[in-house]
Amino acid sequence: MADHRFDPNFTDNVINAMGPKTNPRFRKVMASLIRHVHDFARENELTVDEWMAGVKLLNWAGQMSDDKRNEGQLVCDVIGLESLVDEITFKLAEEAADAPTATAILGPFFRADTPYRNNGDNIVKDVPDGEMVFMHGRVIDFQTKKPLAGATVEVWQASTNGLYEQQDPNQEDFNLRGKFKTDADGRYYFYCLRPTPYPVPNDGPAGKLLELMDRHPYRPAHIHIIATQEGYKPLTTQIFDRQDKYLTNDSVFAVKDSLIVDFVPRKDDPQAGLELEYDVKLVADQA
Amino acid sequence: MADHRFDPNFTDNVINAMGPKTNPRFRKVMASLIRHVHDFARENELTVDEWMAGVKLLNWAGQMSDDKRNEGQLVCDVIGLESLVDEITFKLAEEAADAPTATAILGPFFRADTPYRNNGDNIVKDVPDGEMVFMHGRVIDFQTKKPLAGATVEVWQASTNGLYEQQDPNQEDFNLRGKFKTDADGRYYFYCLRPTPYPVPNDGPAGKLLELMDRHPYRPAHIHIIATQEGYKPLTTQIFDRQDKYLTNDSVFAVKDSLIVDFVPRKDDPQAGLELEYDVKLVADQA
Repeated sequence: MADHRFDPNFTDNVINAMGPKTNPRFRKVMASLIRHVHDFARENELTVDEWMAGVKLLNWAGQMSDDKRNEGQLVCDVIGLESLVDEITFKLAEEAADAPTATAILGPFFRADTPYRNNGDNIVKDVPDGEMVFMHGRVIDFQTKKPLAGATVEVWQASTNGLYEQQDPNQEDFNLRGKFKTDADGRYYFYCLRPTPYPVPNDGPAGKLLELMDRHPYRPAHIHIIATQEGYKPLTTQIFDRQDKYLTNDSVFAVKDSLIVDFVPRKDDPQAGLELEYDVKLVADQA
Repeated sequence: MADHRFDPNFTDNVINAMGPKTNPRFRKVMASLIRHVHDFARENELTVDEWMAGVKLLNWAGQMSDDKRNEGQLVCDVIGLESLVDEITFKLAEEAADAPTATAILGPFFRADTPYRNNGDNIVKDVPDGEMVFMHGRVIDFQTKKPLAGATVEVWQASTNGLYEQQDPNQEDFNLRGKFKTDADGRYYFYCLRPTPYPVPNDGPAGKLLELMDRHPYRPAHIHIIATQEGYKPLTTQIFDRQDKYLTNDSVFAVKDSLIVDFVPRKDDPQAGLELEYDVKLVADQA
Protein backbone atom coordinates (compact mmCIF):
# COMPACT_ATOMS: atom_id res chain seq x y z
CA MET A 1 0.00 0.00 0.00
CA ALA A 2 1.26 3.44 -0.82
CA ASP A 3 1.82 5.67 2.21
CA HIS A 4 0.86 8.81 0.30
CA ARG A 5 -2.27 10.28 -1.25
CA PHE A 6 -1.17 10.27 -4.88
CA ASP A 7 -1.94 7.74 -7.63
CA PRO A 8 -0.66 4.47 -6.11
CA ASN A 9 -0.06 2.86 -9.53
CA PHE A 10 1.82 5.67 -11.20
CA THR A 11 5.39 4.59 -10.43
CA ASP A 12 4.78 0.96 -11.36
CA ASN A 13 3.19 2.11 -14.62
CA VAL A 14 6.28 4.13 -15.53
CA ILE A 15 8.63 1.27 -14.63
CA ASN A 16 6.52 -1.32 -16.44
CA ALA A 17 6.55 0.77 -19.60
CA MET A 18 10.06 -0.59 -20.20
CA GLY A 19 9.99 -3.09 -23.05
CA PRO A 20 11.32 -6.65 -23.23
CA LYS A 21 14.51 -5.68 -25.06
CA THR A 22 15.77 -3.55 -22.18
CA ASN A 23 19.19 -4.71 -20.92
CA PRO A 24 18.60 -6.45 -17.56
CA ARG A 25 21.15 -4.38 -15.64
CA PHE A 26 19.82 -1.18 -17.21
CA ARG A 27 16.26 -2.21 -16.28
CA LYS A 28 17.26 -2.80 -12.66
CA VAL A 29 19.11 0.51 -12.36
CA MET A 30 16.38 2.55 -14.12
CA ALA A 31 13.57 0.94 -12.13
CA SER A 32 15.40 1.83 -8.93
CA LEU A 33 16.15 5.35 -10.17
CA ILE A 34 12.52 5.95 -11.16
CA ARG A 35 11.29 4.65 -7.80
CA HIS A 36 13.71 6.85 -5.84
CA VAL A 37 13.02 9.95 -7.92
CA HIS A 38 9.26 9.49 -7.56
CA ASP A 39 9.50 8.77 -3.83
CA PHE A 40 11.68 11.86 -3.47
CA ALA A 41 9.05 13.98 -5.28
CA ARG A 42 6.15 12.58 -3.23
CA GLU A 43 7.89 12.68 0.16
CA ASN A 44 8.69 16.35 -0.32
CA GLU A 45 5.48 17.15 -2.23
CA LEU A 46 7.79 18.73 -4.77
CA THR A 47 6.13 21.57 -6.64
CA VAL A 48 6.45 22.33 -10.34
CA ASP A 49 8.47 25.44 -9.44
CA GLU A 50 10.95 23.44 -7.38
CA TRP A 51 11.28 20.74 -10.01
CA MET A 52 11.86 23.35 -12.74
CA ALA A 53 14.54 25.00 -10.59
CA GLY A 54 16.28 21.62 -10.50
CA VAL A 55 15.95 21.16 -14.28
CA LYS A 56 17.42 24.63 -14.86
CA LEU A 57 20.32 23.84 -12.56
CA LEU A 58 21.10 20.59 -14.38
CA ASN A 59 20.81 22.20 -17.83
CA TRP A 60 23.14 24.95 -16.60
CA ALA A 61 25.65 22.29 -15.53
CA GLY A 62 25.63 20.79 -19.04
CA GLN A 63 25.97 24.18 -20.67
CA MET A 64 29.08 24.96 -18.57
CA SER A 65 30.71 21.63 -19.36
CA ASP A 66 33.24 21.13 -22.10
CA ASP A 67 36.47 19.22 -22.64
CA LYS A 68 38.14 21.21 -19.86
CA ARG A 69 35.35 21.28 -17.30
CA ASN A 70 32.77 18.77 -16.13
CA GLU A 71 30.22 20.64 -14.07
CA GLY A 72 27.72 17.74 -13.96
CA GLN A 73 30.42 15.73 -12.24
CA LEU A 74 31.09 18.58 -9.81
CA VAL A 75 27.39 18.79 -8.91
CA CYS A 76 27.54 15.08 -8.04
CA ASP A 77 30.76 15.64 -6.11
CA VAL A 78 29.31 18.24 -3.76
CA ILE A 79 26.54 15.84 -2.73
CA GLY A 80 29.09 13.08 -2.14
CA LEU A 81 28.08 10.87 -5.06
CA GLU A 82 31.50 10.53 -6.68
CA SER A 83 33.08 9.55 -3.37
CA LEU A 84 30.30 7.05 -2.75
CA VAL A 85 30.62 5.31 -6.13
CA ASP A 86 34.36 5.32 -5.57
CA GLU A 87 33.82 3.48 -2.28
CA ILE A 88 31.43 1.03 -3.95
CA THR A 89 33.73 0.39 -6.90
CA PHE A 90 36.75 -0.04 -4.63
CA LYS A 91 34.82 -2.47 -2.40
CA LEU A 92 33.66 -4.55 -5.37
CA ALA A 93 37.20 -4.72 -6.76
CA GLU A 94 38.52 -5.71 -3.35
CA GLU A 95 35.94 -8.48 -3.01
CA ALA A 96 36.56 -9.90 -6.47
CA ALA A 97 40.29 -9.82 -6.98
CA ASP A 98 40.00 -11.45 -10.38
CA ALA A 99 37.24 -9.14 -11.60
CA PRO A 100 37.97 -6.76 -14.47
CA THR A 101 39.95 -3.71 -13.46
CA ALA A 102 37.80 -1.21 -11.57
CA THR A 103 37.38 2.07 -13.36
CA ALA A 104 39.36 4.86 -11.77
CA ILE A 105 37.99 8.24 -10.83
CA LEU A 106 40.00 10.78 -12.73
CA GLY A 107 38.48 13.97 -11.36
CA PRO A 108 37.64 16.88 -13.62
CA PHE A 109 41.21 18.09 -14.10
CA PHE A 110 42.99 14.98 -15.34
CA ARG A 111 44.57 15.32 -18.79
CA ALA A 112 45.07 12.20 -20.87
CA ASP A 113 47.95 13.75 -22.82
CA THR A 114 50.29 14.60 -19.94
CA PRO A 115 53.94 14.11 -21.06
CA TYR A 116 56.57 11.91 -19.48
CA ARG A 117 59.31 13.68 -17.56
CA ASN A 118 62.61 12.41 -16.12
CA ASN A 119 63.02 11.40 -12.52
CA GLY A 120 64.45 14.36 -10.65
CA ASP A 121 62.61 16.90 -12.82
CA ASN A 122 60.71 19.81 -11.33
CA ILE A 123 57.06 19.99 -12.42
CA VAL A 124 56.69 23.51 -10.97
CA LYS A 125 57.03 26.40 -13.42
CA ASP A 126 56.81 29.95 -12.18
CA VAL A 127 54.98 29.60 -8.83
CA PRO A 128 57.04 31.98 -6.63
CA ASP A 129 54.89 31.67 -3.51
CA GLY A 130 54.84 27.87 -3.32
CA GLU A 131 56.66 25.61 -0.84
CA MET A 132 58.82 23.18 -2.78
CA VAL A 133 58.66 19.44 -2.03
CA PHE A 134 60.89 16.56 -3.05
CA MET A 135 58.40 13.73 -3.55
CA HIS A 136 59.73 10.21 -3.91
CA GLY A 137 58.90 6.60 -3.30
CA ARG A 138 58.64 3.21 -4.88
CA VAL A 139 55.98 1.35 -6.79
CA ILE A 140 55.73 -2.13 -5.28
CA ASP A 141 53.69 -5.29 -5.70
CA PHE A 142 51.09 -5.27 -2.91
CA GLN A 143 51.43 -9.04 -2.28
CA THR A 144 55.11 -9.80 -2.84
CA LYS A 145 56.38 -6.31 -1.79
CA LYS A 146 58.79 -6.49 -4.75
CA PRO A 147 59.63 -3.17 -6.43
CA LEU A 148 58.22 -2.71 -9.91
CA ALA A 149 60.60 -1.24 -12.48
CA GLY A 150 59.19 0.66 -15.46
CA ALA A 151 55.87 1.48 -13.76
CA THR A 152 54.28 4.84 -14.53
CA VAL A 153 53.45 7.34 -11.78
CA GLU A 154 51.38 10.27 -13.02
CA VAL A 155 50.71 13.26 -10.79
CA TRP A 156 48.84 16.52 -11.06
CA GLN A 157 48.14 19.33 -8.64
CA ALA A 158 46.64 22.82 -8.51
CA SER A 159 48.82 25.91 -8.20
CA THR A 160 48.81 28.12 -5.11
CA ASN A 161 46.08 30.26 -6.67
CA GLY A 162 43.76 27.24 -6.56
CA LEU A 163 43.79 26.67 -10.31
CA TYR A 164 44.92 23.74 -12.40
CA GLU A 165 46.86 24.79 -15.48
CA GLN A 166 43.97 24.24 -17.87
CA GLN A 167 41.84 26.63 -15.83
CA ASP A 168 44.48 29.34 -15.75
CA PRO A 169 45.67 31.25 -18.82
CA ASN A 170 48.73 32.43 -16.86
CA GLN A 171 50.11 28.92 -16.32
CA GLU A 172 52.05 27.18 -19.03
CA ASP A 173 50.67 24.05 -20.63
CA PHE A 174 51.12 20.95 -18.44
CA ASN A 175 52.40 22.97 -15.49
CA LEU A 176 52.23 21.02 -12.23
CA ARG A 177 51.68 17.67 -13.89
CA GLY A 178 53.85 14.91 -15.25
CA LYS A 179 54.37 11.19 -15.78
CA PHE A 180 57.40 9.40 -14.36
CA LYS A 181 58.78 5.91 -15.01
CA THR A 182 60.17 4.01 -12.05
CA ASP A 183 63.85 3.03 -12.27
CA ALA A 184 65.35 -0.45 -11.89
CA ASP A 185 64.69 -0.28 -8.13
CA GLY A 186 61.05 0.73 -8.62
CA ARG A 187 61.82 4.30 -7.58
CA TYR A 188 60.27 7.54 -8.79
CA TYR A 189 61.26 11.05 -7.64
CA PHE A 190 60.58 14.62 -8.65
CA TYR A 191 60.01 18.13 -7.32
CA CYS A 192 56.50 19.49 -6.84
CA LEU A 193 54.58 21.96 -4.68
CA ARG A 194 53.29 21.39 -1.22
CA PRO A 195 49.64 21.43 -2.25
CA THR A 196 47.36 24.16 -0.92
CA PRO A 197 43.62 24.07 -0.28
CA TYR A 198 41.43 25.57 -2.99
CA PRO A 199 37.75 26.08 -3.67
CA VAL A 200 36.05 23.98 -6.30
CA PRO A 201 34.86 26.26 -9.13
CA ASN A 202 31.85 28.00 -7.64
CA ASP A 203 30.66 30.16 -10.50
CA GLY A 204 28.19 27.51 -11.64
CA PRO A 205 25.45 25.25 -10.33
CA ALA A 206 27.71 23.30 -7.96
CA GLY A 207 28.73 26.61 -6.37
CA LYS A 208 25.10 27.67 -6.22
CA LEU A 209 24.19 24.43 -4.43
CA LEU A 210 27.03 24.91 -1.94
CA GLU A 211 25.85 28.45 -1.26
CA LEU A 212 22.26 27.31 -0.76
CA MET A 213 23.49 24.55 1.57
CA ASP A 214 25.54 27.13 3.51
CA ARG A 215 28.74 25.20 2.84
CA HIS A 216 32.24 26.34 1.91
CA PRO A 217 33.66 25.22 -1.47
CA TYR A 218 37.15 24.25 -0.23
CA ARG A 219 38.98 21.04 -0.87
CA PRO A 220 41.82 20.10 1.45
CA ALA A 221 45.27 20.29 -0.15
CA HIS A 222 46.00 17.19 -2.20
CA ILE A 223 48.06 15.67 -4.99
CA HIS A 224 46.41 13.43 -7.60
CA ILE A 225 48.18 10.20 -8.47
CA ILE A 226 47.60 7.50 -11.07
CA ALA A 227 49.97 4.55 -11.05
CA THR A 228 50.00 1.92 -13.79
CA GLN A 229 52.08 -1.10 -14.66
CA GLU A 230 51.41 -3.85 -17.16
CA GLY A 231 49.85 -6.85 -15.43
CA TYR A 232 48.60 -4.73 -12.50
CA LYS A 233 45.35 -2.97 -11.76
CA PRO A 234 45.70 0.78 -12.29
CA LEU A 235 45.46 2.80 -9.09
CA THR A 236 43.94 6.27 -8.97
CA THR A 237 44.09 8.18 -5.76
CA GLN A 238 44.62 11.49 -4.04
CA ILE A 239 46.89 12.10 -1.07
CA PHE A 240 46.09 14.74 1.52
CA ASP A 241 48.23 16.95 3.75
CA ARG A 242 47.63 16.02 7.40
CA GLN A 243 47.95 19.67 8.46
CA ASP A 244 45.16 20.96 6.23
CA LYS A 245 42.25 22.56 8.05
CA TYR A 246 39.74 21.23 5.51
CA LEU A 247 40.73 17.60 6.10
CA THR A 248 37.54 16.89 8.04
CA ASN A 249 35.20 18.90 5.85
CA ASP A 250 36.25 18.37 2.24
CA SER A 251 33.61 19.93 -0.01
CA VAL A 252 33.53 16.74 -2.10
CA PHE A 253 33.94 14.20 0.75
CA ALA A 254 36.96 12.42 -0.77
CA VAL A 255 39.30 12.14 2.24
CA LYS A 256 40.08 8.68 3.63
CA ASP A 257 42.36 8.13 6.62
CA SER A 258 44.74 5.94 4.63
CA LEU A 259 45.33 8.76 2.15
CA ILE A 260 46.64 11.30 4.66
CA VAL A 261 50.37 11.99 4.39
CA ASP A 262 53.03 14.02 6.21
CA PHE A 263 55.33 16.55 4.59
CA VAL A 264 58.57 16.64 6.57
CA PRO A 265 61.48 19.12 6.53
CA ARG A 266 64.28 18.31 4.06
CA LYS A 267 67.84 19.38 4.67
CA ASP A 268 70.63 20.41 2.35
CA ASP A 269 68.56 20.53 -0.80
CA PRO A 270 68.59 23.97 -2.44
CA GLN A 271 65.58 22.94 -4.52
CA ALA A 272 63.19 21.96 -1.72
CA GLY A 273 62.62 22.60 1.97
CA LEU A 274 60.16 19.72 2.36
CA GLU A 275 60.08 16.06 1.53
CA LEU A 276 57.32 13.51 1.00
CA GLU A 277 57.90 9.80 0.75
CA TYR A 278 55.00 7.84 -0.68
CA ASP A 279 55.07 4.22 -1.79
CA VAL A 280 52.44 3.09 -4.25
CA LYS A 281 51.17 -0.49 -3.88
CA LEU A 282 49.71 -2.17 -6.93
CA VAL A 283 47.61 -5.34 -7.05
CA ALA A 284 48.41 -7.85 -9.81
CA ASP A 285 45.61 -8.48 -12.33
CA GLN A 286 45.53 -12.17 -11.46
CA ALA A 287 46.19 -11.82 -7.74
CA MET B 1 21.53 0.17 11.24
CA ALA B 2 22.52 0.34 7.62
CA ASP B 3 21.49 -2.70 5.57
CA HIS B 4 24.58 -2.46 3.35
CA ARG B 5 28.30 -2.96 3.74
CA PHE B 6 29.43 0.60 3.00
CA ASP B 7 30.36 3.39 5.42
CA PRO B 8 27.19 3.72 7.56
CA ASN B 9 27.89 7.35 8.46
CA PHE B 10 28.65 8.69 4.99
CA THR B 11 25.19 9.93 4.03
CA ASP B 12 24.54 11.60 7.37
CA ASN B 13 27.92 13.30 7.12
CA VAL B 14 27.06 14.76 3.73
CA ILE B 15 23.63 15.93 4.92
CA ASN B 16 25.00 17.37 8.14
CA ALA B 17 27.58 19.39 6.23
CA MET B 18 24.75 21.84 5.47
CA GLY B 19 25.23 25.02 7.49
CA PRO B 20 22.83 26.87 9.76
CA LYS B 21 21.91 29.49 7.15
CA THR B 22 20.38 26.92 4.81
CA ASN B 23 16.74 27.71 4.01
CA PRO B 24 14.63 25.15 5.95
CA ARG B 25 12.65 23.98 2.92
CA PHE B 26 15.84 23.70 0.87
CA ARG B 27 17.47 21.72 3.68
CA LYS B 28 14.55 19.28 3.81
CA VAL B 29 14.49 18.76 0.04
CA MET B 30 18.30 18.43 -0.30
CA ALA B 31 18.58 16.04 2.65
CA SER B 32 15.92 13.85 1.05
CA LEU B 33 17.57 14.11 -2.37
CA ILE B 34 21.01 13.19 -0.97
CA ARG B 35 19.52 10.23 0.93
CA HIS B 36 17.67 8.91 -2.13
CA VAL B 37 20.63 9.39 -4.47
CA HIS B 38 22.98 7.61 -2.05
CA ASP B 39 20.48 4.80 -1.42
CA PHE B 40 20.05 4.44 -5.18
CA ALA B 41 23.84 4.16 -5.63
CA ARG B 42 24.24 1.63 -2.81
CA GLU B 43 21.22 -0.52 -3.67
CA ASN B 44 22.49 -0.92 -7.21
CA GLU B 45 26.17 -0.96 -6.27
CA LEU B 46 26.54 1.67 -8.94
CA THR B 47 29.98 1.63 -10.54
CA VAL B 48 32.04 4.64 -11.51
CA ASP B 49 31.44 3.76 -15.17
CA GLU B 50 27.67 3.73 -14.73
CA TRP B 51 27.68 6.97 -12.74
CA MET B 52 29.86 8.68 -15.36
CA ALA B 53 27.47 7.49 -18.10
CA GLY B 54 24.70 9.27 -16.18
CA VAL B 55 26.77 12.44 -15.78
CA LYS B 56 27.51 12.45 -19.51
CA LEU B 57 23.83 12.04 -20.31
CA LEU B 58 22.84 14.94 -18.05
CA ASN B 59 25.60 17.20 -19.41
CA TRP B 60 24.44 16.30 -22.93
CA ALA B 61 20.90 17.34 -21.99
CA GLY B 62 22.13 20.75 -20.86
CA GLN B 63 24.23 21.20 -23.97
CA MET B 64 21.19 20.52 -26.21
CA SER B 65 19.00 22.96 -24.30
CA ASP B 66 18.43 26.54 -25.35
CA ASP B 67 15.55 29.01 -25.48
CA LYS B 68 13.72 26.74 -27.94
CA ARG B 69 14.40 23.36 -26.39
CA ASN B 70 14.54 22.05 -22.84
CA GLU B 71 16.09 18.61 -22.96
CA GLY B 72 16.58 18.37 -19.17
CA GLN B 73 12.84 18.73 -18.84
CA LEU B 74 12.28 16.07 -21.49
CA VAL B 75 14.57 13.63 -19.66
CA CYS B 76 12.39 14.15 -16.58
CA ASP B 77 9.27 13.74 -18.69
CA VAL B 78 10.16 10.29 -20.00
CA ILE B 79 10.60 9.00 -16.46
CA GLY B 80 7.24 10.47 -15.46
CA LEU B 81 8.58 13.19 -13.18
CA GLU B 82 6.82 16.16 -14.79
CA SER B 83 3.48 14.37 -14.66
CA LEU B 84 4.08 13.44 -11.04
CA VAL B 85 4.91 16.97 -9.89
CA ASP B 86 1.89 18.12 -11.88
CA GLU B 87 -0.27 15.70 -9.90
CA ILE B 88 1.31 16.85 -6.63
CA THR B 89 0.94 20.54 -7.44
CA PHE B 90 -2.66 20.07 -8.59
CA LYS B 91 -3.49 18.14 -5.41
CA LEU B 92 -1.94 20.80 -3.18
CA ALA B 93 -3.83 23.58 -4.97
CA GLU B 94 -7.06 21.59 -4.71
CA GLU B 95 -6.56 21.07 -0.98
CA ALA B 96 -5.72 24.69 -0.26
CA ALA B 97 -8.07 26.76 -2.36
CA ASP B 98 -6.76 29.99 -0.90
CA ALA B 99 -3.11 29.11 -1.39
CA PRO B 100 -1.05 31.09 -3.89
CA THR B 101 -1.74 30.19 -7.50
CA ALA B 102 -0.15 26.88 -8.40
CA THR B 103 2.52 27.14 -11.07
CA ALA B 104 1.42 25.73 -14.38
CA ILE B 105 3.38 23.29 -16.48
CA LEU B 106 4.09 24.95 -19.77
CA GLY B 107 5.80 22.11 -21.60
CA PRO B 108 8.90 22.68 -23.70
CA PHE B 109 7.11 24.28 -26.67
CA PHE B 110 5.16 27.10 -25.04
CA ARG B 111 6.08 30.58 -26.30
CA ALA B 112 5.51 33.55 -24.03
CA ASP B 113 5.19 35.95 -26.95
CA THR B 114 2.28 34.32 -28.79
CA PRO B 115 0.06 37.02 -30.36
CA TYR B 116 -3.65 37.58 -29.86
CA ARG B 117 -5.93 36.61 -32.73
CA ASN B 118 -9.63 37.27 -33.34
CA ASN B 119 -12.31 34.77 -32.55
CA GLY B 120 -13.10 32.88 -35.73
CA ASP B 121 -9.52 33.05 -36.98
CA ASN B 122 -7.72 30.03 -38.35
CA ILE B 123 -4.41 29.27 -36.61
CA VAL B 124 -3.44 26.75 -39.31
CA LYS B 125 -1.14 28.04 -42.04
CA ASP B 126 -0.15 25.76 -44.89
CA VAL B 127 -0.78 22.26 -43.47
CA PRO B 128 -2.48 20.58 -46.47
CA ASP B 129 -2.76 17.09 -44.94
CA GLY B 130 -4.44 18.12 -41.68
CA GLU B 131 -8.06 17.59 -40.64
CA MET B 132 -9.59 20.95 -39.81
CA VAL B 133 -11.49 21.46 -36.54
CA PHE B 134 -13.76 24.23 -35.35
CA MET B 135 -12.90 24.47 -31.66
CA HIS B 136 -15.16 26.48 -29.41
CA GLY B 137 -16.44 26.77 -25.90
CA ARG B 138 -16.81 29.09 -22.96
CA VAL B 139 -14.64 30.10 -20.06
CA ILE B 140 -16.77 29.85 -16.92
CA ASP B 141 -16.43 30.32 -13.18
CA PHE B 142 -16.07 26.85 -11.70
CA GLN B 143 -18.25 27.67 -8.67
CA THR B 144 -20.92 30.01 -10.02
CA LYS B 145 -20.94 28.58 -13.59
CA LYS B 146 -21.13 32.17 -14.86
CA PRO B 147 -19.40 32.88 -18.19
CA LEU B 148 -16.29 35.02 -17.97
CA ALA B 149 -15.98 37.76 -20.59
CA GLY B 150 -12.53 39.00 -21.58
CA ALA B 151 -10.72 35.85 -20.42
CA THR B 152 -7.72 34.69 -22.42
CA VAL B 153 -7.54 31.23 -23.99
CA GLU B 154 -4.13 30.39 -25.40
CA VAL B 155 -3.60 27.26 -27.48
CA TRP B 156 -0.70 25.60 -29.25
CA GLN B 157 -0.30 22.36 -31.12
CA ALA B 158 2.17 20.47 -33.29
CA SER B 159 1.74 20.17 -37.03
CA THR B 160 0.99 16.87 -38.76
CA ASN B 161 4.73 16.29 -39.20
CA GLY B 162 5.05 16.13 -35.42
CA LEU B 163 6.84 19.46 -35.11
CA TYR B 164 5.92 22.67 -33.32
CA GLU B 165 6.64 25.76 -35.38
CA GLN B 166 9.81 26.68 -33.49
CA GLN B 167 11.24 23.24 -34.28
CA ASP B 168 10.44 23.47 -37.97
CA PRO B 169 12.08 25.96 -40.36
CA ASN B 170 9.30 25.28 -42.89
CA GLN B 171 6.51 26.59 -40.65
CA GLU B 172 5.85 30.26 -40.34
CA ASP B 173 6.41 32.01 -37.03
CA PHE B 174 3.59 31.36 -34.52
CA ASN B 175 1.90 28.83 -36.79
CA LEU B 176 -0.59 26.64 -34.89
CA ARG B 177 -0.71 28.85 -31.86
CA GLY B 178 -2.70 31.85 -30.75
CA LYS B 179 -4.37 33.74 -27.91
CA PHE B 180 -8.11 34.48 -27.95
CA LYS B 181 -10.24 36.76 -25.77
CA THR B 182 -13.67 35.51 -24.78
CA ASP B 183 -16.60 37.62 -25.91
CA ALA B 184 -19.39 39.09 -23.75
CA ASP B 185 -20.89 35.60 -23.38
CA GLY B 186 -17.57 34.09 -22.33
CA ARG B 187 -17.15 32.39 -25.70
CA TYR B 188 -14.00 31.68 -27.66
CA TYR B 189 -13.84 30.01 -31.09
CA PHE B 190 -11.29 29.41 -33.81
CA TYR B 191 -10.11 26.89 -36.38
CA CYS B 192 -7.27 24.50 -35.63
CA LEU B 193 -6.01 21.06 -36.60
CA ARG B 194 -7.22 17.78 -35.28
CA PRO B 195 -4.00 17.00 -33.42
CA THR B 196 -1.92 14.00 -34.46
CA PRO B 197 0.39 11.83 -32.37
CA TYR B 198 4.08 12.63 -32.61
CA PRO B 199 7.35 11.41 -31.11
CA VAL B 200 9.10 13.55 -28.54
CA PRO B 201 12.47 14.68 -29.97
CA ASN B 202 14.59 11.55 -29.75
CA ASP B 203 17.91 12.74 -31.10
CA GLY B 204 19.21 13.49 -27.58
CA PRO B 205 19.52 11.92 -24.14
CA ALA B 206 15.77 11.53 -23.62
CA GLY B 207 15.59 9.57 -26.88
CA LYS B 208 18.60 7.54 -25.82
CA LEU B 209 16.90 6.67 -22.52
CA LEU B 210 13.70 5.65 -24.33
CA GLU B 211 15.71 3.44 -26.67
CA LEU B 212 17.57 1.83 -23.76
CA MET B 213 14.22 1.27 -21.99
CA ASP B 214 12.80 -0.29 -25.18
CA ARG B 215 10.00 2.28 -25.28
CA HIS B 216 8.42 4.23 -28.16
CA PRO B 217 8.73 8.05 -28.09
CA TYR B 218 5.13 8.86 -29.09
CA ARG B 219 2.78 11.24 -27.38
CA PRO B 220 -0.95 10.85 -28.00
CA ALA B 221 -2.49 13.67 -30.06
CA HIS B 222 -3.22 16.71 -27.90
CA ILE B 223 -3.83 20.45 -27.84
CA HIS B 224 -2.16 22.63 -25.19
CA ILE B 225 -4.34 25.19 -23.44
CA ILE B 226 -3.66 27.98 -20.97
CA ALA B 227 -6.64 29.98 -19.74
CA THR B 228 -6.28 33.13 -17.65
CA GLN B 229 -8.59 35.76 -16.26
CA GLU B 230 -7.92 38.44 -13.70
CA GLY B 231 -9.03 37.28 -10.25
CA TYR B 232 -8.80 33.58 -11.22
CA LYS B 233 -6.13 30.95 -10.95
CA PRO B 234 -4.48 30.33 -14.33
CA LEU B 235 -5.21 26.91 -15.76
CA THR B 236 -2.70 25.01 -17.89
CA THR B 237 -3.73 21.75 -19.44
CA GLN B 238 -3.64 19.47 -22.45
CA ILE B 239 -6.64 17.80 -24.04
CA PHE B 240 -6.35 14.43 -25.73
CA ASP B 241 -8.17 12.79 -28.65
CA ARG B 242 -10.14 9.77 -27.39
CA GLN B 243 -9.40 7.84 -30.59
CA ASP B 244 -5.61 8.06 -30.28
CA LYS B 245 -3.80 4.73 -30.02
CA TYR B 246 -1.16 6.17 -27.66
CA LEU B 247 -3.73 7.27 -25.09
CA THR B 248 -2.80 4.45 -22.71
CA ASN B 249 0.94 4.60 -23.27
CA ASP B 250 1.93 8.26 -23.53
CA SER B 251 5.73 8.49 -23.55
CA VAL B 252 5.56 11.24 -20.92
CA PHE B 253 2.64 9.83 -18.85
CA ALA B 254 0.51 13.00 -19.01
CA VAL B 255 -2.95 11.63 -19.90
CA LYS B 256 -5.74 11.94 -17.34
CA ASP B 257 -9.25 10.62 -17.95
CA SER B 258 -10.81 14.04 -17.44
CA LEU B 259 -8.68 15.49 -20.24
CA ILE B 260 -9.93 13.15 -22.99
CA VAL B 261 -12.17 14.82 -25.56
CA ASP B 262 -14.23 13.82 -28.63
CA PHE B 263 -13.91 15.37 -32.04
CA VAL B 264 -17.30 15.12 -33.77
CA PRO B 265 -18.34 15.66 -37.41
CA ARG B 266 -19.36 19.21 -38.32
CA LYS B 267 -21.81 19.92 -41.11
CA ASP B 268 -22.12 22.77 -43.56
CA ASP B 269 -18.83 24.46 -42.69
CA PRO B 270 -16.50 24.71 -45.68
CA GLN B 271 -13.63 25.48 -43.29
CA ALA B 272 -13.84 22.39 -41.07
CA GLY B 273 -15.18 18.84 -41.15
CA LEU B 274 -14.84 18.36 -37.40
CA GLU B 275 -15.90 20.21 -34.30
CA LEU B 276 -14.69 20.25 -30.70
CA GLU B 277 -16.56 21.91 -27.88
CA TYR B 278 -14.51 22.47 -24.74
CA ASP B 279 -15.49 24.59 -21.76
CA VAL B 280 -12.73 25.85 -19.51
CA LYS B 281 -13.57 26.14 -15.81
CA LEU B 282 -11.56 28.59 -13.74
CA VAL B 283 -11.34 28.78 -9.96
CA ALA B 284 -11.48 32.25 -8.40
CA ASP B 285 -8.36 33.35 -6.50
CA GLN B 286 -10.34 33.76 -3.29
CA ALA B 287 -12.65 30.75 -3.73
